Amino acid sequence: MGELDLIRAFVAGLGERGGRVLRGPGDDAAVVRADGVQAVTTDTVVDGVHFKLATHTPADVGWKAMATALSDLAAMGAQAGEAYVALGLPPDFGDARARELVQAMEQLAEICGVTIAGGDVTESPTLFATVTATGWADDAQALIGRDGAHPGDLVGVTGALGASAAGLRLLEAGHTDDPDELIQRHRRPWPLLGAGKALAEAGVTAMIDVSDGIATDARHLAESSGVNVSIRLGALPVASGVEAVTANPAELAATGGDDYELLFTCPAVKADAMQPAVMPIWIGEVREGSGLELVDAAGRPVALAGFEHL
Amino acid sequence: MGELDLIRAFVAGLGERGGRVLRGPGDDAAVVRADGVQAVTTDTVVDGVHFKLATHTPADVGWKAMATALSDLAAMGAQAGEAYVALGLPPDFGDARARELVQAMEQLAEICGVTIAGGDVTESPTLFATVTATGWADDAQALIGRDGAHPGDLVGVTGALGASAAGLRLLEAGHTDDPDELIQRHRRPWPLLGAGKALAEAGVTAMIDVSDGIATDARHLAESSGVNVSIRLGALPVASGVEAVTANPAELAATGGDDYELLFTCPAVKADAMQPAVMPIWIGEVREGSGLELVDAAGRPVALAGFEHL
Repeated sequence: MGELDLIRAFVAGLGERGGRVLRGPGDDAAVVRADGVQAVTTDTVVDGVHFKLATHTPADVGWKAMATALSDLAAMGAQAGEAYVALGLPPDFGDARARELVQAMEQLAEICGVTIAGGDVTESPTLFATVTATGWADDAQALIGRDGAHPGDLVGVTGALGASAAGLRLLEAGHTDDPDELIQRHRRPWPLLGAGKALAEAGVTAMIDVSDGIATDARHLAESSGVNVSIRLGALPVASGVEAVTANPAELAATGGDDYELLFTCPAVKADAMQPAVMPIWIGEVREGSGLELVDAAGRPVALAGFEHL
Repeated sequence: MGELDLIRAFVAGLGERGGRVLRGPGDDAAVVRADGVQAVTTDTVVDGVHFKLATHTPADVGWKAMATALSDLAAMGAQAGEAYVALGLPPDFGDARARELVQAMEQLAEICGVTIAGGDVTESPTLFATVTATGWADDAQALIGRDGAHPGDLVGVTGALGASAAGLRLLEAGHTDDPDELIQRHRRPWPLLGAGKALAEAGVTAMIDVSDGIATDARHLAESSGVNVSIRLGALPVASGVEAVTANPAELAATGGDDYELLFTCPAVKADAMQPAVMPIWIGEVREGSGLELVDAAGRPVALAGFEHL
């Protein structure tokens, strides 16, 4: 199948959602109805860097590329809108696998109410997928950056950590056909769009998705906000099953990436109001100062073997 | 230099233009002020597919990636706004070349009044650059698709053709250090944003940028519009110097890609009004029917050796 026919096959399988898309794939550019403010993010996954075709199906790759981009919109509290997909396909990849990859992107887009409104397909020696995702909000104040944390804020996270990193360890150990939930969490991360929007509406002051590991991401948030973020290592929620994969589950929860939970800060007076919407787990506090501090139950600093080099 | 430091170095060199960017690089997503309608396009260039590092500097690569995306906005008649850049950099590419690539993107963005508002940098075995570009207009009617050509319309093009393909032939023949204008046209294409906007305002009915060769792009336009496009091969403007590179300059002008001139249709009564803004060259007519027809001065069909296989 030629490139144009392949694109036609992709496009035939795409649905339209949200009512913004006035002109979809097939022209020089898509055209969407715009208002308020728009959040835009670009995320790329590359074979051998972010996944391996030996341990990921083409559908896993498509899902992951879409999920990581949408997760960035979740971390802004945006209403996800459209996605634009650039694919680099090796000559021997084949039409069937390419379609499987795009179908998984579309599957997740449908679940999230997102329209794949445009894209580009090209040959490439290395398989890669770049997803540019756009989200919408009424005004800039409705979107949450990394830079709004204030001393005195509480630090929360939306769910358990370490599952994806533990799943990756299982995959690397050869458990590629295992229906293990940890592996599934690694292969098919979920963008927490609903939780992100609920948290933004509930008044969080800063938010970031946990893609690099919560210790690293908390440090990004601390640096952007010009504050110190103190996290109690023992308070980190560790995903079920992680303890079977590592001798130090708390460490993997702190440093393992690709969980795509949301890390956020909020004034203590608003903490209770968040409970019904997202069931946050409170893991620390924001203080005057800079950088990240990991502490034990007594407030003493904790060193992490997997963290110093970052 | 680590990836984060490299990104910081990139971002430090970026300017902000147009007043739409409320939150630039450095958060989970950029935030831009939105209104009217937005045109969005994604374009990728890959080493060995769209360019070769043997014949293109990193700056040429950055320029070309930005130019091809912005050219799609030109073909819609949009006011170019923001660009989002995803880079895949080989481990041995080096910081200096990466910065040269991004600086050239920024140079062209500045000339075009575009803000690079976000992006992603990742390792990749193969060098690639994906640019997602957004443009703006008051309403959907102000943007020109490929699908509006009517029987009776004239077919015009903004400038001479074949230069880029001729430049590529010179490069492939080893003239890599030649300051030849044809080579420059291949390495540094110009997105015709001003001409595209002027043509949209002057009332063109359909428009496309000439990226695949005008014969192929005219056929895309004909198919989208459900009309026949008839182009007089002898009327195609051939870029100066092309005759020295090929025995059949008209054929190269018809089939050579990457010129990024704009091909458009418009009612005959509006043709004169376009003259001052873009000096169009009139090359054919739109008729009832389908597909593309290339004809000689007497209106007889012409076969093109380089075209049948497309």
